[in-house]
Amino acid sequence: MLGPTGGSAARALWLVGEQLPMQSRRIPGAARSNGAPATKNLFPTRPALWLNAGRKPMSKTKVLLLGSGFAAEIHAECYRRFVPEAELVGVYSRSADRAVAFAQKHQIPRHFTDLERAIGESGAEVTDVCLPNFLHHQAVLLAARAGQHVIVEKPLCLTLEQADEMIEVCRAHGRKLMYAEELCFAPKYERVRALAQEGALGQLYMLKQAEKHSGPHSDWFYDVEQSGGGVLMDMGCHGLAWCRWMLGGRPRALTVQAHLQRGLIHGHRTRGEENSVVLVEFEGGCVGVVENSWAKLGGMEDRIEVYGTGGVSYADLFQGNAALTYSEQGYGYALEKASSTRGWTFTIFEEAFNQGYPHELSHFIQCVRHDLQPVVTGEDGRAVLELIYAAYRSAATGQKVSLPFQATVAKPIDLWQA
Amino acid sequence: MLGPTGGSAARALWLVGEQLPMQSRRIPGAARSNGAPATKNLFPTRPALWLNAGRKPMSKTKVLLLGSGFAAEIHAECYRRFVPEAELVGVYSRSADRAVAFAQKHQIPRHFTDLERAIGESGAEVTDVCLPNFLHHQAVLLAARAGQHVIVEKPLCLTLEQADEMIEVCRAHGRKLMYAEELCFAPKYERVRALAQEGALGQLYMLKQAEKHSGPHSDWFYDVEQSGGGVLMDMGCHGLAWCRWMLGGRPRALTVQAHLQRGLIHGHRTRGEENSVVLVEFEGGCVGVVENSWAKLGGMEDRIEVYGTGGVSYADLFQGNAALTYSEQGYGYALEKASSTRGWTFTIFEEAFNQGYPHELSHFIQCVRHDLQPVVTGEDGRAVLELIYAAYRSAATGQKVSLPFQATVAKPIDLWQA
Amino acid sequence: MLGPTGGSAARALWLVGEQLPMQSRRIPGAARSNGAPATKNLFPTRPALWLNAGRKPMSKTKVLLLGSGFAAEIHAECYRRFVPEAELVGVYSRSADRAVAFAQKHQIPRHFTDLERAIGESGAEVTDVCLPNFLHHQAVLLAARAGQHVIVEKPLCLTLEQADEMIEVCRAHGRKLMYAEELCFAPKYERVRALAQEGALGQLYMLKQAEKHSGPHSDWFYDVEQSGGGVLMDMGCHGLAWCRWMLGGRPRALTVQAHLQRGLIHGHRTRGEENSVVLVEFEGGCVGVVENSWAKLGGMEDRIEVYGTGGVSYADLFQGNAALTYSEQGYGYALEKASSTRGWTFTIFEEAFNQGYPHELSHFIQCVRHDLQPVVTGEDGRAVLELIYAAYRSAATGQKVSLPFQATVAKPIDLWQA
Amino acid sequence: MLGPTGGSAARALWLVGEQLPMQSRRIPGAARSNGAPATKNLFPTRPALWLNAGRKPMSKTKVLLLGSGFAAEIHAECYRRFVPEAELVGVYSRSADRAVAFAQKHQIPRHFTDLERAIGESGAEVTDVCLPNFLHHQAVLLAARAGQHVIVEKPLCLTLEQADEMIEVCRAHGRKLMYAEELCFAPKYERVRALAQEGALGQLYMLKQAEKHSGPHSDWFYDVEQSGGGVLMDMGCHGLAWCRWMLGGRPRALTVQAHLQRGLIHGHRTRGEENSVVLVEFEGGCVGVVENSWAKLGGMEDRIEVYGTGGVSYADLFQGNAALTYSEQGYGYALEKASSTRGWTFTIFEEAFNQGYPHELSHFIQCVRHDLQPVVTGEDGRAVLELIYAAYRSAATGQKVSLPFQATVAKPIDLWQA
Repeated sequence: MLGPTGGSAARALWLVGEQLPMQSRRIPGAARSNGAPATKNLFPTRPALWLNAGRKPMSKTKVLLLGSGFAAEIHAECYRRFVPEAELVGVYSRSADRAVAFAQKHQIPRHFTDLERAIGESGAEVTDVCLPNFLHHQAVLLAARAGQHVIVEKPLCLTLEQADEMIEVCRAHGRKLMYAEELCFAPKYERVRALAQEGALGQLYMLKQAEKHSGPHSDWFYDVEQSGGGVLMDMGCHGLAWCRWMLGGRPRALTVQAHLQRGLIHGHRTRGEENSVVLVEFEGGCVGVVENSWAKLGGMEDRIEVYGTGGVSYADLFQGNAALTYSEQGYGYALEKASSTRGWTFTIFEEAFNQGYPHELSHFIQCVRHDLQPVVTGEDGRAVLELIYAAYRSAATGQKVSLPFQATVAKPIDLWQA
Repeated sequence: MLGPTGGSAARALWLVGEQLPMQSRRIPGAARSNGAPATKNLFPTRPALWLNAGRKPMSKTKVLLLGSGFAAEIHAECYRRFVPEAELVGVYSRSADRAVAFAQKHQIPRHFTDLERAIGESGAEVTDVCLPNFLHHQAVLLAARAGQHVIVEKPLCLTLEQADEMIEVCRAHGRKLMYAEELCFAPKYERVRALAQEGALGQLYMLKQAEKHSGPHSDWFYDVEQSGGGVLMDMGCHGLAWCRWMLGGRPRALTVQAHLQRGLIHGHRTRGEENSVVLVEFEGGCVGVVENSWAKLGGMEDRIEVYGTGGVSYADLFQGNAALTYSEQGYGYALEKASSTRGWTFTIFEEAFNQGYPHELSHFIQCVRHDLQPVVTGEDGRAVLELIYAAYRSAATGQKVSLPFQATVAKPIDLWQA
Repeated sequence: MLGPTGGSAARALWLVGEQLPMQSRRIPGAARSNGAPATKNLFPTRPALWLNAGRKPMSKTKVLLLGSGFAAEIHAECYRRFVPEAELVGVYSRSADRAVAFAQKHQIPRHFTDLERAIGESGAEVTDVCLPNFLHHQAVLLAARAGQHVIVEKPLCLTLEQADEMIEVCRAHGRKLMYAEELCFAPKYERVRALAQEGALGQLYMLKQAEKHSGPHSDWFYDVEQSGGGVLMDMGCHGLAWCRWMLGGRPRALTVQAHLQRGLIHGHRTRGEENSVVLVEFEGGCVGVVENSWAKLGGMEDRIEVYGTGGVSYADLFQGNAALTYSEQGYGYALEKASSTRGWTFTIFEEAFNQGYPHELSHFIQCVRHDLQPVVTGEDGRAVLELIYAAYRSAATGQKVSLPFQATVAKPIDLWQA
Repeated sequence: MLGPTGGSAARALWLVGEQLPMQSRRIPGAARSNGAPATKNLFPTRPALWLNAGRKPMSKTKVLLLGSGFAAEIHAECYRRFVPEAELVGVYSRSADRAVAFAQKHQIPRHFTDLERAIGESGAEVTDVCLPNFLHHQAVLLAARAGQHVIVEKPLCLTLEQADEMIEVCRAHGRKLMYAEELCFAPKYERVRALAQEGALGQLYMLKQAEKHSGPHSDWFYDVEQSGGGVLMDMGCHGLAWCRWMLGGRPRALTVQAHLQRGLIHGHRTRGEENSVVLVEFEGGCVGVVENSWAKLGGMEDRIEVYGTGGVSYADLFQGNAALTYSEQGYGYALEKASSTRGWTFTIFEEAFNQGYPHELSHFIQCVRHDLQPVVTGEDGRAVLELIYAAYRSAATGQKVSLPFQATVAKPIDLWQA
C-alpha cells in the first residue's frame, strides 16, 4: 500500500514534523528507490524545534515584550500555548491604558510606558520587539546594551545604517539578533521547502510569493515616517526573505526590478505604495517574484508557487487551509482582514500556528537557552532591507538595479518619492 | 475595513484560538449587530486548552504509554512537542524489540513487555492506551485498579459489557476514563462547530463526516477477532462521535440505518467490511451521515459537511489543507496512506496538529492536573459503540434499528455476520 | 502514458470530445501499455453527438415546445445556439401573456394556450415537454397520438401506471419517447464515465451524486398534487438516473433505503420532503448514494464521486467550474439559486452547456433525424420513478425495500405520507 | 441582489450567455439596488455569438483551412460541432500524407500541398491560417489578394513590418483580418470581464494572466527562425492580448518590463526563452502581469486574476474546471500536456469549448456573413507583437521600455539575443 519511500515510520516523524534537518531523515548515501541521485544539500539546517520540551521541570526564559498591538498579541498567545520554556515578565506600551490592559489580559506581572525602564527593570533575558518600524533601531540597541538577546519583528528597521549598527551592537555585546520572519517557519511552506531540498522539484528556476490584504490595522503603518514605506515595507519583506530562505538562506541576489502603485484605496491617508511587484534575480539563475497589496479586498492572502525543472508545488496559507462557509446571518470572525462574514466565507483556524509563529518563537527561545545560531538573523533582515531599497530605486528609475545597493536616505520610500 | 463583529481583538483570540467557551468571546446579552438574537447555547463547553502553560516551573504529570504502533507514535510526539506538563515515564509493547526501540527513539526511561508490570512499576499517574482494540478492556481495568487515570484510543473496546465494566471500574476507583476521539479537538472542525454554536448556520438538519483510506497499517486490524469489525470499528467510530459532539455531546440517537460492503480490495485478508454508510437520526430531527472506507485509494481523506437552515460549512482536513505538488521523481512522504509521491500529490503538513491530537492530549492532561471533567469520556465511547452495534444489525436485517440497542455478542461484527 | 509533450492525436478527439463510443478511441485488442487488460465494456454506447453538423444545407426538424418556465428557457436557448438542425415552430403556455412573451423573446412563429391545438396545429415532428410534472402524462399521450416524437423533462410523470401508458402509446405509434436526463450528457460527468469505462477506476463499488439548492423557482413544485413529491421528485430523479447510466444504463437495482426530512425552510408552503438521502444496491454489489436538498443555501450544487477498486474520481459542476469573485457592490448574476452576489461568490459560466443540455438535445434531434435509439428513454424514466416509489416506501417503513416494487398511489409521496 | 429562489430571467440569458453586449442586460439608466452608480462602459461590445443559428435553412460559408497540426485539429472540430454556418471546403498541409489524412478524418472534400493552389482553387470565402508563425505573413497576403477574408492564429506574424503589410493588404482588398485570440472568447474569462464591466470589481489596477505547460507539440516552435522566439511568442501573446481586451480592447500601453530565462528543460533544442514574466503599464494606471512557461510540468495551466478597488476575481481554465481523478492504472487522456495519467490527475472536459474556440470561430463567421467588425483584428495582433518586441528589448537591457516601440529585426527574439 505504502510506496517505496513512504510508510509509517516516515510519517511518525512528519506527523509531528518540526522540520528536522533533512539529513537526519535520509539514510546517508542512499539513492532514491527510483535511482535518482540524492540532491546536493543546498539548504540550511537548523536546530530542531521544541528540542527538549516535555522532558523535565525547567527554569523559564524571561521575556520582555515591547508593544501591545497586533503582533504583540500573537506573540503573547504563542508563548503561552506553545513555548513553555518562556515566561513573559513584562510588557511595554507607549500608552498606559494599553500597557495595563495587555498585562492583565495576558497575566504579565509588570507593565511599562518607559522603554528604558522596561529594559532596565524587567529582568528579562530576551527582549521581543513588536513596535512600529521606526522604533526598532532604538529598542534593539537599548536591549543589547542591557545584555539582552533580541527578537525583532519585520522589517528590521528603516535604514541600512540602522541595520548595520544594530548588528554591530548585538555582536559587540555577544547578544543574538533574531529576525522574526515567520514565513521561514510556516509549516506548510516548510514542507514545500523540504520537498525542494529533497530534489523533488529538480532545479528551482522561479519562486513566487504573494501576501495581500486590504491594509493594516494600525494607523502608524500609513505614515511613511513611521513605517518607512508602504506595502513593500509591510509585507514585501516577507516574500523577499522567503525567497532567500528557499535558496539556502544566504543566496547572492544580483538584480532587482520593481513596479509600485499608490492611490488605490488608501490614497487619502498614505503616500505609501499599495500594490507592488518585485523581481529578484539570484545567482544561479533563479528568479523571485514577490507580489504584495494593501488594496486586495476579501481577506488575507498568502501564497507561494515553486517552479523547478522537475516539478512544481503550490501552497496557500489562508483560502488553501480554510473551511468554506455560507452563512445568512454571519458570525464572529472568518479570517484576518475579512470585512464580512455573511454569504460565502473562508473560515480559517489556528492562524498563528499555520503562519509559523509558534515554530519561530520556540526556535528563538531554544537558540537562547542552548546558545544556538538562529536561522534568521539581523543579517537576513538587512539583506531584505537592501532588496527593498533596490526595489524602490528600480520603481523610480524604471531600471533593473544591481546588488549590492547602497544609498543614503532617511527611509526606504524616499528612493522612490524623492 | 473590518466588519461589525470582526477586528483585531477578536482575531487575537482566534489566532491562537483554542476553542475557548463561546460565552467568553461574546459580550453577554449583546445582540448581533444585524439584530439576530444570540443563539441558545446547545453546545458543551470545556476547560480551555493549555490552561496554564507557560506560566511557571511545574511538576510534570507522569504518563505510561501502552503500545508502540501508529497511534503511540503520534501520542509520543505530541506529548513532547505540545504538552510540556506531561512526561512519558514508560512504554509497553508486546514485542521487546519494539519496546526498546520506541523507548530509545522517544527517550522514555523505562520499557516493558509485561502489561501488569508496566502498570505496576512505571509510577505513572496516567495510562495512555494505544493498543489493539481487543486489549483495551483489560488494560483500562488494570490501570484504573492501580489508581491511574486512563486515556484510551478509539474505539473504546469490543463489547458493550466491556464498556460498562470499564466505566464502572474507573468510577469506583475515582479515576477518569478519557476517550481519545481527536475529531472533537481537530481545530478546523472545532472552528466549524463554533460557527454552528454561534448560530451562523441556523438549525442543523444534516451532519456528514467521511473518513477514508486504503486500509490500516497494522495487520491486527484485518483480524476481526482483534479489531471487532472492519472499517466501521476502525473509522466509523470517528464520524459517529463527531456527530454527537456537534449536537451537544450527549444527544439522544433514535435510529440507525447502515449499508456495508466487503471483499473490495482486502477480501483476501479480512472478513471485515471495507466500505460503510451509516445514517443516524437524532432527537430533534438532525440526521448524521457517516461514510467510511478502507478501499479508497490515493491517500487519507477526512471531511465534514454541516447543513443548517441558515447556512452550510464544509471542511476537509487533508486535501483541503495540503500543498499541491507535481514531482517527476517523487519525494519522501506526501500524506497518510498515499501510495506514491510521483505526479500530482497533496502534500500535507503538521498532520497530528491538524487532526487535533495535541489539543486532545493537552486537554486530558489538564483534566487530570486540575481535576476537570473531560469533554469526551468512556460514556461517549460506549454510546458510539452502541451505534456501531446498531449499524451492524441494520446492515444484517435491512431495517432501521431503534436506540437504545442491546445485544450479546463477542464482537460487534457478529451482528452482521452471524 | 503519454509522453511529456505528447497526446495531440488523442487530444484532438477529446478537445471536442462529444463522448464518441469508447471503442472508436481504442485500438481494438490493444492492451494498455502497462499490461492491464482492456476492461470489459459494460457501458452503453450511443450515436455520436453533432453527427452531421456543419456539412451541408439541411432541412430543419420542427419542434414544439410545451412550457415557458425555467426548463423551457434553457431548451429554447440551447436549440438556438447548439442544435442548428432543429427549429422551434411553436410554444405552448397555460398563460397567454407568457406564451406571447416567450414566443417573442425566442422568435418562435406561433404560440398557444390550448394544448390540443398546439399539438394539432404546430406542424411539429417533435414535441418537447417542459411542463409541470402532473401534465407530462397527458401531453405525451396527445403528442404521440398526433404522430410526434416526444422529449420529456424529468421526472417522467407522477405514477408508474402513467409511465407504462406513455411508453405503450409511444411504442404503438412508433414514436420515440426521449427522457431528458441531462446528467447522462453533462460533459464533465461523461468524462468521468469514460474513465470508468476504460477501467481507470477498477471495479466500481460506490457511486455518489448530490444535487442541492434552496428550492425551486416555480410555485407548482411546492404543491405535491402537481409535483408528486418534494426534492426527491424534483432532483432525486437526476442522481438515480445517473447511477443507472454509470452502471451501463440498465443495471438491475436490488434494494432501496431512504431517509427524508421536511419542514426545514419551506415547511410553511410544502408538505414535500426538503432533504433526502437514498441508497440503492445494484446487482453486482455497487451501491448508489443520492443526496438532494431544497434547504441548502448559497447556490446550486451538483457533484459526483465515483469509487472503484482501482481509483476514485470527483467532479463538481458548479463550484468546481466557477470563477471565484469578491465584490463589494455585487453584480448581476453568479449562479443558479445564489441569493446574493456580494462578498465571495462562485461565478459560473455556460451553465446549460456544462450541465449537458446542448449535448442532450442535439442527441435527441439526431435520433429523430436518423432514426436512432436514444440513450435515455421512457423506460429509464419509469425505472427511476420505481426507485422513487421505493424510496418513499422505505422512508415510511424504515425498511430496505426490494425491487421490483409496485404500489397503487395517486402520487409517489403518498407512499410516505399516507 | 437576487432573491433566494430568484433570478430565473437573468439566468436564462446567462445560461446560454454568449456574452451579449452588457447594455442589453441592464435596464438603461437604472441604478443598482444598492445605490451604486452604473459604471461607465469602458468595454467593447460585439455582435452576439450564434446570432441566427437554428432559425432556418442556410447557405454555408466556405472555409479553407491552412495547416494540419494541433490548432488545425481544434478548428476543424469546432467548425463541425459548433459553427453550422461554416463548411470546410479544403485543407492545406506541407506534407501530402498529412493533408490526405486530415481531409479524410474531417471529411473535407479537397486537400492541397501547394499553398497558392489551395487559395486559388478551393473556392473558399474565408481562409483560416493555422500554420507555423513564419508562414502567416505570406498566407494572409495571398488569401487577401485572392479576395478571401482571413482568420489567423496567434501570433500574428514575425515582424511589425509584416504586420503592417498584412493589415494594409487586407484593408486595400476590403477583406477582414481576424486575429484568433481565443482568450477574448473563453467563456469563463468572459464572465469575469462582464463582472468588471458591470463595475463589480471597482476600478481595475492589476491584471494577471499565466499560461504554462511543458513545451509545444511541434518541432518548429523550438526553432526561433520559424517561431520568432520562445514561450513569449508562443503563449505570451495570449496574456498580452487578454490584458488589452480587459481594458477595453484598445488601451494605450505605456511601458514594458520583462524577465526571460532559457536553458531550463529544453536548452538542448532551443535558443528560445522558456520562462517569462512581463509587466505592462497601461494608461490610467493599470498594470498587466503576464507569466508564461514551457518548463512547467504537470499539464497545461491557464489562469487569470483581476484586481480592482472594489473586488477581485480569479479564474482557472484547466485545474479550475477539471474532475479530480486517482487511477492506479491510468487512462487515455487527462489534459493538454499532462505527461501521465496515473496517480492523481486533473481530468479536463470540453477543452476547446472552455478555451473559447467555438465562440471565437462562430463570431468570425458571423462577422463575415453579416459584414460585422470583428472584436479582435490584425491591429490587435500587431499591438501584441509590439509589446513582445518591447519585452525582448527590456529583457536585454534591464530597462523599462516605453511604447510605442519600433525596431528593425528579422524576428522578435533578436532584440534579446542580438
